Amino acid sequence: MKVAIIGGVAGGASAAARARRLDESAEIVLFERGEYISFANCGLPYHVGGAIPRRGSLLVMTPERFHARTGVDVRVRHEVTAVDPAAHTLTILDRTTGNAYKESYDKLILSPGAGPIRPDVPGADDPAVMMLWTLPDMDRIKARVDAGIRRAVIVGGGFLGLEVAENLRLRDVEVTLVEMGPQIMPPLDPEMTQPLVAELERKGVKVLLRSTVVSVRRDAGRDGSGTPEVVIELDDGRELPADLVVFSIGVRPNSSLAKSAGLATGERGGIVVDTRLRTSHPDIFAIGDAIQVTDALGLPSQLPLAGPANRQGRIAADNIFGAEREYKTTFGTSVVKVFDVTAARTGATEKALRKADVPHEKVYLHPYSHATYYPGARMMHLKLLFTREGRILGAQIVGHHGVDKRIDVLATAMQAGLTVYDLQELELAYAPPYGSAKDPVNFAGFVASNLLRGETRVVHADALPEDSLLLDVREPPEHKAGKLPGSTLMPLGKIRERLSELPRDRDIVVYCAVGIRGYIAERILRQQGFRTWNLSGGYTTWKQFNP
Amino acid sequence: MKVAIIGGVAGGASAAARARRLDESAEIVLFERGEYISFANCGLPYHVGGAIPRRGSLLVMTPERFHARTGVDVRVRHEVTAVDPAAHTLTILDRTTGNAYKESYDKLILSPGAGPIRPDVPGADDPAVMMLWTLPDMDRIKARVDAGIRRAVIVGGGFLGLEVAENLRLRDVEVTLVEMGPQIMPPLDPEMTQPLVAELERKGVKVLLRSTVVSVRRDAGRDGSGTPEVVIELDDGRELPADLVVFSIGVRPNSSLAKSAGLATGERGGIVVDTRLRTSHPDIFAIGDAIQVTDALGLPSQLPLAGPANRQGRIAADNIFGAEREYKTTFGTSVVKVFDVTAARTGATEKALRKADVPHEKVYLHPYSHATYYPGARMMHLKLLFTREGRILGAQIVGHHGVDKRIDVLATAMQAGLTVYDLQELELAYAPPYGSAKDPVNFAGFVASNLLRGETRVVHADALPEDSLLLDVREPPEHKAGKLPGSTLMPLGKIRERLSELPRDRDIVVYCAVGIRGYIAERILRQQGFRTWNLSGGYTTWKQFNP
Repeated sequence: MKVAIIGGVAGGASAAARARRLDESAEIVLFERGEYISFANCGLPYHVGGAIPRRGSLLVMTPERFHARTGVDVRVRHEVTAVDPAAHTLTILDRTTGNAYKESYDKLILSPGAGPIRPDVPGADDPAVMMLWTLPDMDRIKARVDAGIRRAVIVGGGFLGLEVAENLRLRDVEVTLVEMGPQIMPPLDPEMTQPLVAELERKGVKVLLRSTVVSVRRDAGRDGSGTPEVVIELDDGRELPADLVVFSIGVRPNSSLAKSAGLATGERGGIVVDTRLRTSHPDIFAIGDAIQVTDALGLPSQLPLAGPANRQGRIAADNIFGAEREYKTTFGTSVVKVFDVTAARTGATEKALRKADVPHEKVYLHPYSHATYYPGARMMHLKLLFTREGRILGAQIVGHHGVDKRIDVLATAMQAGLTVYDLQELELAYAPPYGSAKDPVNFAGFVASNLLRGETRVVHADALPEDSLLLDVREPPEHKAGKLPGSTLMPLGKIRERLSELPRDRDIVVYCAVGIRGYIAERILRQQGFRTWNLSGGYTTWKQFNP
Repeated sequence: MKVAIIGGVAGGASAAARARRLDESAEIVLFERGEYISFANCGLPYHVGGAIPRRGSLLVMTPERFHARTGVDVRVRHEVTAVDPAAHTLTILDRTTGNAYKESYDKLILSPGAGPIRPDVPGADDPAVMMLWTLPDMDRIKARVDAGIRRAVIVGGGFLGLEVAENLRLRDVEVTLVEMGPQIMPPLDPEMTQPLVAELERKGVKVLLRSTVVSVRRDAGRDGSGTPEVVIELDDGRELPADLVVFSIGVRPNSSLAKSAGLATGERGGIVVDTRLRTSHPDIFAIGDAIQVTDALGLPSQLPLAGPANRQGRIAADNIFGAEREYKTTFGTSVVKVFDVTAARTGATEKALRKADVPHEKVYLHPYSHATYYPGARMMHLKLLFTREGRILGAQIVGHHGVDKRIDVLATAMQAGLTVYDLQELELAYAPPYGSAKDPVNFAGFVASNLLRGETRVVHADALPEDSLLLDVREPPEHKAGKLPGSTLMPLGKIRERLSELPRDRDIVVYCAVGIRGYIAERILRQQGFRTWNLSGGYTTWKQFNP
């Protein structure tokens, strides 16, 4: 058996190592067009920022060490330029010698990854315009920062754009983040990105939404220091001077080789595979960022993530060596650090549910990371999406600590098919430094279950019913510090004695800071015969929608 | 409907609040014999140590505030001294006035909690001997520490003993921890406590195992400073001078009231309840530390934990108001902080599995808390227990960061009925500051699945086969720094070329640092026809067994 693997990062290296462990006698050849295999591409921004001081620590595995361990024939700087599925041969360009040669295979694994989308605006070829995808990209950006540049513009507010913004800011560069869409971090719903924007601004990053770059213009000498400088022109006429521009406007699957070979690809360019990770040709498998996956809603999607890529590598190798394993769904579980804030999600967003016309319910809550009496507890913002039957559809959390823990628990629960009722019963580890006796995940279960059982009826801050009485059940100082426009104050502790002041012929929307006192008030009023709703997530969620 | 609740901490307060939300018109009376309801008992050690500077922050909820919110009739310093199930009446002692009175109920919820086991040795009544259970207990201990005592002896190495040891040490007290059994932290298997003992000793706590206190003797004036002093005598004749002795030798359910009322109790004194949390009398429910629960193995058990107590409170209230909810299992998910180390578990231990004669498999691994190239990554020690069919039986993790996250994911997976095969596929959130593309939980799934599929055969450090060749596949400097006695070095990278040096007529146990290189070596040797096993968890696990 001769297995050829194209692409030596993440999935490709995993597949090669797994194949060798399964079959000591197989001939395994790994082609990588770059210099490195298994380099830490997720770490690139952090070397620029200084958190990872040693460049060498990004080189997780050298070709030599990999070969010594696995006996895999690793060929770096060898680019596969053509695949002939019928003949089972590859054409390879040795980028060191410039020579082309052919190689046969029995089974082929494509792991070509994705590549950054290149900006298509005048001036984008200016040397001050960069992208961050490879180690050489990183070296170029870092060299500029080390040279003492003053101003950077990041174009694109996704994962990478945010990480680059943070890391340049940590190097004392003035950073402006330009995002074309109405929100940063497209994997989240808009209101969940509000704490991220707030954190960016708190840390000195200027965020411009709904702004498109129309050109990059060189403007040498404008800067007093004599540094060559570019000017970024936006569609609204604004001009941003910059010493460095980093475009991170998305990625695209590297599927041209697969297309040339006649393999099926999807609407967004991803290589089409079945649940065995087999392409449209039975002897060719494909894995990683280049493939089209099935998302949490069962829809074809491009979700470039390192975890799935690594697992797919194992599964493809298993299938080649006869194990019959399936890869079914990519849930899009992901996390990003933005200075001191963490944002994470799993499963479907509300945007995606609406687009796919999937009926759903949602709740917002704002639990603390751990027992509030133990130092360091911080509020997190949690959104849970689920069906009327209680099936978990997705979750998003933004906060300071413990966000990654709760998203992983919710991801596990969702993948296991648990319902929101089950979340109530999860027995999670509690001690004051780590959590609360009722964990945020339990709380999410309580709130969602109360909703489904009809014990609470909620309204949402993005769809407040008109003509209802807005009743603030917080304490006077809270009301004074900020409230829903037109709302009336009646603290929870007074409601039972002030019932006569409330209308029986009008809908009453109660709200508090985060939804708990509002829920108690709602229960009191409902049982007293009032027509009552609680504002999910309270004033805190309302502020996320109305910053 | 009149509901009486006995006990106002954790479960009792939860039950009262839930009952009120379910029924605004019910009469709800909460009896608490102490001064406080809902105080943060898990926070007591941290106020002594100073992490929680304000005593007031431990008073999570005052009786007044609770009443204002819920309209529940809260009676603190009211001790219920008798229950008459037939007459549906309680006898109460008002501890403020000294008066006794009767009160009727329709439904009763018992939430009397557990109490510390009092030491039964001569001298245990000395004023320098204390326990830490209530706020006044805490005040007494803190007063001693504030007064500048030099030496403390903690008797008992469970959760509370460890937390007290840490917090006294943080106040510069010389601390000796005396544990009767062969290990500290009985909720863990012995080898998993080794990193905790190491951390305690690193931080200056002296740990004495297999040591029983036989007496406490007052020895005034022996200390040069003139401080009154006691001497703790151990069974081996050693004597420990101390200015403070804290006994934390376990807890016992407060079930005497239930017993006097004729309610059924279990072997270890816990109140017997059904899955609806109903006692042997249909109108009396019981919750919290006082009840007998069913553990992960289906056995009756006492597992005093705050999370289950709170959830039971909700469930009992739901059942009283007609919701028909069940409480089935207490998995014993728990976590403890010992200085910079975190230890956690969920489900059954190996000790418990052996005792109950449940066939099981285990694997050890030592993954990093997050990507090793990102700063702050630390090794954790993970033990996973499972059946031959792949069902997860339990897990234990000890490490620095991310331990609570992984135990919560494993607890969720276990409670959801996922198998070790499913753990491989979990899609967890990855970015370098939070985890790895292959999360420790995925890795645990890989290793366990490899074992069950026969791709790896493992031996364990506590049962090394005799007469086998011990083959160290690490690099020479690692071998030199510490090895299994009698083992032979052959680095992984050299094995393929040195096969002829290895015996074909003898069992070969390969090992590396943590088990990964050992697994690769095992796969090579197996496929070359050698009789090979891999040491699960490698040298690191062996050191846990042989510190």
